[in-house]
Amino acid sequence: MAVYTPLSTEQVREFLNHYDLGELVAFQGIAEGVENSNFLLQTTRGRFILTLFERRMDPAELPWFLELMGRLSARGLSCPQPIADRTGRTLSQLAGKPGVIVSFLPGSSQAHPDAWACRAVGRALAELHEAGKGMGARANRLGPEAWPVLLEACGDGKGGESAEFSALQAEAGQALSRLLPAWPKPEALPRGQIHADLFPDNVFFLSDAYERRLSGVIDFYFACTDFLTYDLAIVLNAWCFEEADAAESRSGGSSEGRVIFRPDKAAAVLEGYESLRPLEPAERAALPVLCQGAAMRFLLTRLYDWTHTPPDAQVTRKDPWAYAERLRHFMRLSPQAFSLPVETGLKDGGGREVKA
Amino acid sequence: MAVYTPLSTEQVREFLNHYDLGELVAFQGIAEGVENSNFLLQTTRGRFILTLFERRMDPAELPWFLELMGRLSARGLSCPQPIADRTGRTLSQLAGKPGVIVSFLPGSSQAHPDAWACRAVGRALAELHEAGKGMGARANRLGPEAWPVLLEACGDGKGGESAEFSALQAEAGQALSRLLPAWPKPEALPRGQIHADLFPDNVFFLSDAYERRLSGVIDFYFACTDFLTYDLAIVLNAWCFEEADAAESRSGGSSEGRVIFRPDKAAAVLEGYESLRPLEPAERAALPVLCQGAAMRFLLTRLYDWTHTPPDAQVTRKDPWAYAERLRHFMRLSPQAFSLPVETGLKDGGGREVKA
Repeated sequence: MAVYTPLSTEQVREFLNHYDLGELVAFQGIAEGVENSNFLLQTTRGRFILTLFERRMDPAELPWFLELMGRLSARGLSCPQPIADRTGRTLSQLAGKPGVIVSFLPGSSQAHPDAWACRAVGRALAELHEAGKGMGARANRLGPEAWPVLLEACGDGKGGESAEFSALQAEAGQALSRLLPAWPKPEALPRGQIHADLFPDNVFFLSDAYERRLSGVIDFYFACTDFLTYDLAIVLNAWCFEEADAAESRSGGSSEGRVIFRPDKAAAVLEGYESLRPLEPAERAALPVLCQGAAMRFLLTRLYDWTHTPPDAQVTRKDPWAYAERLRHFMRLSPQAFSLPVETGLKDGGGREVKA
Repeated sequence: MAVYTPLSTEQVREFLNHYDLGELVAFQGIAEGVENSNFLLQTTRGRFILTLFERRMDPAELPWFLELMGRLSARGLSCPQPIADRTGRTLSQLAGKPGVIVSFLPGSSQAHPDAWACRAVGRALAELHEAGKGMGARANRLGPEAWPVLLEACGDGKGGESAEFSALQAEAGQALSRLLPAWPKPEALPRGQIHADLFPDNVFFLSDAYERRLSGVIDFYFACTDFLTYDLAIVLNAWCFEEADAAESRSGGSSEGRVIFRPDKAAAVLEGYESLRPLEPAERAALPVLCQGAAMRFLLTRLYDWTHTPPDAQVTRKDPWAYAERLRHFMRLSPQAFSLPVETGLKDGGGREVKA
């Protein structure tokens, strides 16, 4: 949650001179995003996003991301579109970093997505999987091979002193030793391009008094090639749990700790996804294991960041315990868990029933 | 749930000759609606609804309903628009009944409206209340003066034999004797034109993979002049309870019988309503009593219909017990019940937080 590379007005103004985007009116750093520095540019021609790529980004891979975004956009789902400079290049240099200007997407993310939003994001994910067909592959650097390395590296950090933290590390290690042998072989399930980070803050909605619409998807820089259903497992982790107190204020809810699984939201994600791309039986059966893996991946990167972020840094450390709870939830599930029917409440009432 | 007056193709074809709506292609009876006969007409010009008015409708009042519908439509909220025949009349005669052709509204109702739909319908209700300003009054024939008469009349029917039914009648009588003295005096709260029957089957939504929209409101033939907040109380009764098993399949829920109150949905209705017309303190304080009254009104008409509908009639009798439970729920509430904050989960997450 930071702007890593501060820019001066003069730097931005000079950079914009290479583009056909009018004059700079104002610019501001954007507080979201943990991987890159993002700026909102207001010019005489409109609003744009300037991204500078920081760690974990190889500029040679940028065309791959841009291709995926272009394909998805061509299918009617808005995502940021790169803007070429006067020489036709989309990737430039600014302040010694690779940078790109992309179109601004209107809308805002939902902090507490409901079942309808879950269904919409399920559909958007399937659209992304269809859009990626036929593209070259990009390795998933945070896949199962990376997990033991991440866990090991947590020991180097500063968080290992507390008993609570050590217990969490130990639990992750035990779960990992059960999970890795159960992980599907690469050829066992359909693979393709996945977003790999489709959290609620990366999906925008527009709404007014009577209307709401999923208006766009952002932040493709974790996208890679992996099991398509693993992407679905990430969405189930990210969209289908509620903080205990939020759920309780609604209708009771059977809390056991900080987060509560919402089966109706999970069913809505699947309903939206399968409206475009129905799961194969092997994919459905693998979902509980893939959900464990997705919980593990975010548990481990959060553990890592927890130990490697100085407590006084201007960054909000994300809570690893919330993902430990998700992991426990998915480890309790039977392989049939996602084959049982669940009422989403999203079916239309049928309107005026016409009598034959 | 019936077509009371069957029509022949020849009758409909002849009737359409008076209109500029093209040739009849097909027509079908519509199974919804308990008061009138409705037909879907497909002509070479499009789809239309033909309504024949049965009991409880005085044709002299039709212009009042049409004015309310016209005013609401002029404010941008779709509702059926009456279509004039070649002589400029909207009200005609067919099969000995007064009849009207209105525009067809696309969309379908939601059997299980979620909090978002509740917020949208709250806003639509406020829009209707604003639209009705300055219109002449129409008495509410199913207001509190009618309730003792309805209860009395239940004794004439056939349902009074069962002990369960007698107990329900007795309970309604006791509640009524507490409720009537507490009912607000006519000048105590703002009055105006109310829909008086804004149940989920009278509100249409359109949706596709990424978008949903409240697309229209129908069935204005119970509309009348009464406390505006009584209309809100009807919506709270009709939209903010779930069948016990549906709610349980979601997140636990504290069931006590057949229906469960959803405070988040009630908060969403109020949020939508107050986005256009904020409640006065006296209206908010009166809400629990008005909600009891709304539950009483539907309990009593359902009791009446239960006893006066032959068990072998081709009509689905609506369950009065579900409204007895609502009545009990609202009788337990304190006057402050609707003044407490409740999380609807509908606030946007704020999207990209821009750093100053």
